[in-house]
Amino acid sequence: MADLRPLKGRKLGDRRVVVDRPHARYFRYLGPGVLEAKLEAQAPRTSGQRRMALLRAVLFGRPLSSAADLAERLPIWKALPVFSSDVMSSVAYATGAMMLILASAGTENYKYVLGLSVVVVALLVIVTFSYRQTIRAYPSGGGSYIVAHANLGVIAGLVAAGSLLTDYVLTVSVSVSSGVQALYSAFPALEPIAVPLIALSILLVMVVNLRGLRESGTLFASPTYIFIGSMLLLIGVGIFESLTGQLHHVTDVVPLSGLATENMGVFLLCKAFADGCSAMTGTEAVANGVPAFQPVEWKNAQKTMIIMATLLGIMFLGTSFLAVNIGAHPANDLITNTPGGGESVLSQVGRTVFGGRGPLYYILQFATMGILILAANTSFADFPRLSSILARDGFFPRQFSLRGERLAFNSGIVALSLVSIALVVAFNGSTDRLIGLYAIGVFTSFTLSQSGMVKHWFVERGDGWRRSALINGVGAAVTAIVVVVIAISKFDQGVWMIIIVVPILVALMLFIKHEYDLEGRGLQVQPDVVFGVPHRRQRVVVAAQSMTRAVVQAVRVGQTMGEEVQLVHVTLDHAEGENFRERVERQLPGARVVLVESPYRALVRPFVRYLEVSQAEDPERLTIVLLPEHLARHWWDRILYNQNVHRIREALVGRKDFVVLDTPYRREI
Amino acid sequence: MADLRPLKGRKLGDRRVVVDRPHARYFRYLGPGVLEAKLEAQAPRTSGQRRMALLRAVLFGRPLSSAADLAERLPIWKALPVFSSDVMSSVAYATGAMMLILASAGTENYKYVLGLSVVVVALLVIVTFSYRQTIRAYPSGGGSYIVAHANLGVIAGLVAAGSLLTDYVLTVSVSVSSGVQALYSAFPALEPIAVPLIALSILLVMVVNLRGLRESGTLFASPTYIFIGSMLLLIGVGIFESLTGQLHHVTDVVPLSGLATENMGVFLLCKAFADGCSAMTGTEAVANGVPAFQPVEWKNAQKTMIIMATLLGIMFLGTSFLAVNIGAHPANDLITNTPGGGESVLSQVGRTVFGGRGPLYYILQFATMGILILAANTSFADFPRLSSILARDGFFPRQFSLRGERLAFNSGIVALSLVSIALVVAFNGSTDRLIGLYAIGVFTSFTLSQSGMVKHWFVERGDGWRRSALINGVGAAVTAIVVVVIAISKFDQGVWMIIIVVPILVALMLFIKHEYDLEGRGLQVQPDVVFGVPHRRQRVVVAAQSMTRAVVQAVRVGQTMGEEVQLVHVTLDHAEGENFRERVERQLPGARVVLVESPYRALVRPFVRYLEVSQAEDPERLTIVLLPEHLARHWWDRILYNQNVHRIREALVGRKDFVVLDTPYRREI
Repeated sequence: MADLRPLKGRKLGDRRVVVDRPHARYFRYLGPGVLEAKLEAQAPRTSGQRRMALLRAVLFGRPLSSAADLAERLPIWKALPVFSSDVMSSVAYATGAMMLILASAGTENYKYVLGLSVVVVALLVIVTFSYRQTIRAYPSGGGSYIVAHANLGVIAGLVAAGSLLTDYVLTVSVSVSSGVQALYSAFPALEPIAVPLIALSILLVMVVNLRGLRESGTLFASPTYIFIGSMLLLIGVGIFESLTGQLHHVTDVVPLSGLATENMGVFLLCKAFADGCSAMTGTEAVANGVPAFQPVEWKNAQKTMIIMATLLGIMFLGTSFLAVNIGAHPANDLITNTPGGGESVLSQVGRTVFGGRGPLYYILQFATMGILILAANTSFADFPRLSSILARDGFFPRQFSLRGERLAFNSGIVALSLVSIALVVAFNGSTDRLIGLYAIGVFTSFTLSQSGMVKHWFVERGDGWRRSALINGVGAAVTAIVVVVIAISKFDQGVWMIIIVVPILVALMLFIKHEYDLEGRGLQVQPDVVFGVPHRRQRVVVAAQSMTRAVVQAVRVGQTMGEEVQLVHVTLDHAEGENFRERVERQLPGARVVLVESPYRALVRPFVRYLEVSQAEDPERLTIVLLPEHLARHWWDRILYNQNVHRIREALVGRKDFVVLDTPYRREI
Repeated sequence: MADLRPLKGRKLGDRRVVVDRPHARYFRYLGPGVLEAKLEAQAPRTSGQRRMALLRAVLFGRPLSSAADLAERLPIWKALPVFSSDVMSSVAYATGAMMLILASAGTENYKYVLGLSVVVVALLVIVTFSYRQTIRAYPSGGGSYIVAHANLGVIAGLVAAGSLLTDYVLTVSVSVSSGVQALYSAFPALEPIAVPLIALSILLVMVVNLRGLRESGTLFASPTYIFIGSMLLLIGVGIFESLTGQLHHVTDVVPLSGLATENMGVFLLCKAFADGCSAMTGTEAVANGVPAFQPVEWKNAQKTMIIMATLLGIMFLGTSFLAVNIGAHPANDLITNTPGGGESVLSQVGRTVFGGRGPLYYILQFATMGILILAANTSFADFPRLSSILARDGFFPRQFSLRGERLAFNSGIVALSLVSIALVVAFNGSTDRLIGLYAIGVFTSFTLSQSGMVKHWFVERGDGWRRSALINGVGAAVTAIVVVVIAISKFDQGVWMIIIVVPILVALMLFIKHEYDLEGRGLQVQPDVVFGVPHRRQRVVVAAQSMTRAVVQAVRVGQTMGEEVQLVHVTLDHAEGENFRERVERQLPGARVVLVESPYRALVRPFVRYLEVSQAEDPERLTIVLLPEHLARHWWDRILYNQNVHRIREALVGRKDFVVLDTPYRREI
């Protein structure tokens, strides 16, 4: 046995390792039978691997040790852009969306926008306070899935998870698409390659995220802060102008025609409100990402949550106030200033307040474009984290729970990118109409999460639990009402799709869980059984179709088991069989050959049947079946080689008196 | 060890076999260490397998023993329909095809048809005599591939094989399509489902052929004989009418308009001749299928060849003679009487000679339809045989050389069906325009085969070799000229496709051969080496990621190798690792645990590196690596389970000091 303690050393070659302290280069000795792998232990071996490793290093940076996790945590100033860009980006379009709905009953209804905005902000306050409590109660990540799962059961948890996952995908597709749209409204020549550009942008965000949360936080911080700064400036200047009577009206915007087709009523107000609610997508991001914060995690998360909600409230109310006061008209295209779509409300507010298209106006416009693309980044922070939690619980494939070289959840990041790109391709880049679908998912998860918290407080009954339960109860009730309002008022605009997709996702996750449970039960070892050294008599059989190196290897492995080795050879031709026997007896002394002639030309079943009947002659014995397998080098070789090994294995594995051993063979050429 | 001699018996259960003479039910004792499997040895086990077996029995019949091969051989009367339906079916359209070409320079040129037909029949006579010699020289199957390969080298052989394989596929697609076309010209309601109907017909012919050659011969004999009978009757009556001056002219056929656009000349004559040559496709079938005949195989094959050529000559010349004499007009649609395509020449001859649309006329029409579909059957006899020979020589995947339960070459039959169906789907059922492509392939193989025979005689120099060489030499020269004529005159009609497809096929076959050779070299055992019982010290290592039944099984297998077993556990988490060690030491006494902590989260490479460095400490020793693998039950499980086992195997297999053993585990649930 290898002695693990380090020996005196000398330099080692790369591929063939030389004696004397061979561990030292690759491993650190931690104690008897415990080694720690150095980074060198996973260094690339072949030139192909080396090239890949170099590419990865350039794209993603050097691998990070698990111990570096803490250093990767986010301070508040980095966490704010990561987790709030989604929610803040909606300031760019939420006011316009509400106005557009109201316009369908006449432009005089714009006056309701301010009232609706106040209601949305009130909702925001309620949800923020609710989540503040959740963060404290679930400091290891209090996403809707965890809270609903823990308190309301599996299905509620999975519904919350499914809604959120859907939302994250929608957010990435829509936000990146609209960012690129803004780009080609400036440079029309780019329009024909819009879809590849969108895909490329998503891949870019993906690569940055694969570099790790901290790096994406650093890279994406400045656009967010510029957006926040210019919005606050806009609102400050605007309110000052308004108070001093210097605020002008927009005069040069042509109102959309063909409006005023519906009557004003509660239904229309609800529809407008539903659009306003889409501003709140992403509010839950902070609660979901608590473990990404620097310690004390929950405190920092709470602070971030409050800052984010305050900023959002100010920007949203301010924009609505100014939009009404300058007499802005909504555009068909909510986000960008495209030729056909009209000018966005925020653009009208900007140039009116800033007195025309000056530098401040352009900074605001570019910052808006930036924050729209960055909204995707919040999803890139949350989707992988949520899917890693789902994977840990067995509802997602296991690899989603593994961290990559840079401590990011690579599988989740890549999956999110690919699904989003697929959605963009499917909608040919026109994902605007998916905006309306955001809100339903996010409010479903709000409701489930808040309801879970209410249950939590009732079970826990700690200090002040009644007050906490009341806060979450109000949150749950209000968001539940919003869900119903959105579902009804937006049903014909595609919300029915979400109602189909989420249950499919839930069913899929339950199925994955079922499969893992089955595997777990199949592999489970009772924790108190002691397995003695095996003492059953055994015979060793090699399935041998011809005299190859693979068969020789299998026979020699069988001989190390200290038994006589029997080669069972199924043949279609007597002479061929005798010829095989002669070669084996000459070249492999000690091995015995049994020929099974198969006049009906089946190879696998007669072999299996022979093993069974000879096992039955001596049931106390164990039969070890060695299957020599020539390991294919390429996928096409798998078509050319015989698949009998797999069929034998399928027929014998898991049966009481048999143990199957594959002995793969391949000669390096 | 199992004693193979039969013991006193008692009845056996199905799944769990009981002691006392357990072999008797499934095996016959032939001698020491030799058993013969009875049909029961490959009986189905699970209810799913039983249902499949029942279905197979209904579709294909009971499995046949290899010894039954002789009984499956064909007498001449069955061989004639099997091997000649292809060549005879061309009588239905070859005359019309030639007339259509000639018509493009004016209908007065129809007079050349008879002369061209005489040339084609002369060609037929030459080719027949050439092949008669080939059959004698290659009594074990003298297809073009074998003859060209043996005498002219690999490439010539493969070109012949590729041309023939392409031809067989074309024949199946075109003949079945035109048969079904005839059907829906009678029942127009079927036209929308033409493609599915064609596919279904091909599958039907496939199933009959999977039942074995003898059965397909029996089933398909009567349509062929009815066709031959009615054609001979037609020609007999026609000549009698002609001699007695009773043969009428067709008067009610409207000549095709828009003709006479080209000038008569040698090129047009060549084009017409090329179309006439398509009548000779299938001539080689008999020579290729010699082993399918009853003994003495070559004699029966020669007789069949002569009968076939005689019949073909009579029918082809007779049809052309009558067509000219009744003043028939060619139809655009050569084969069927479709509304838009016009009436086929054979139909015009039939109703003129038989005096209107009476019973004899309808029998002729239905027999024509039948023989067109059955032309496919010749391909079904030849393609699988050729591909089995190619597979035996390593140019085709091995499974093509295996005979199925009914002694048919199942893989070839299924492959031919699928490729033909694909072609039909690709051409949406309109495969008429592929007719012109037949001739080039078949004449290429003729030329190569005859040239090979010339070489053969020159090398052999037996009795009368000069005469034989002369016959084959004339054959080779004539068919070579035909190849050039067809290639030039039909180049624009798609022959270029064949010129692309055949080299691709040849390249593919060479590639397959290369891969098999590589495998063979990798697995080759020197025939004179004697392998002693292994005496190298060894250590046994189990890759263990958790305490599962799969790991326990692997450890116990390792313990039967009589060595201390070491479990190497790569862990991301120190506590988890120590917990694992504690469980192993408690539950598997004697097993030792080495923990490798992996702070960079790689699992496979640190494992492999650890094995390497500890092997390097004691290079005299052999490391046996046991890989416990939870065998997936379904394909989706393969996505859910970790693929690390495969990566470890890939990294270690084929390396000098390592032997990898997979220990698959699955618990029956």
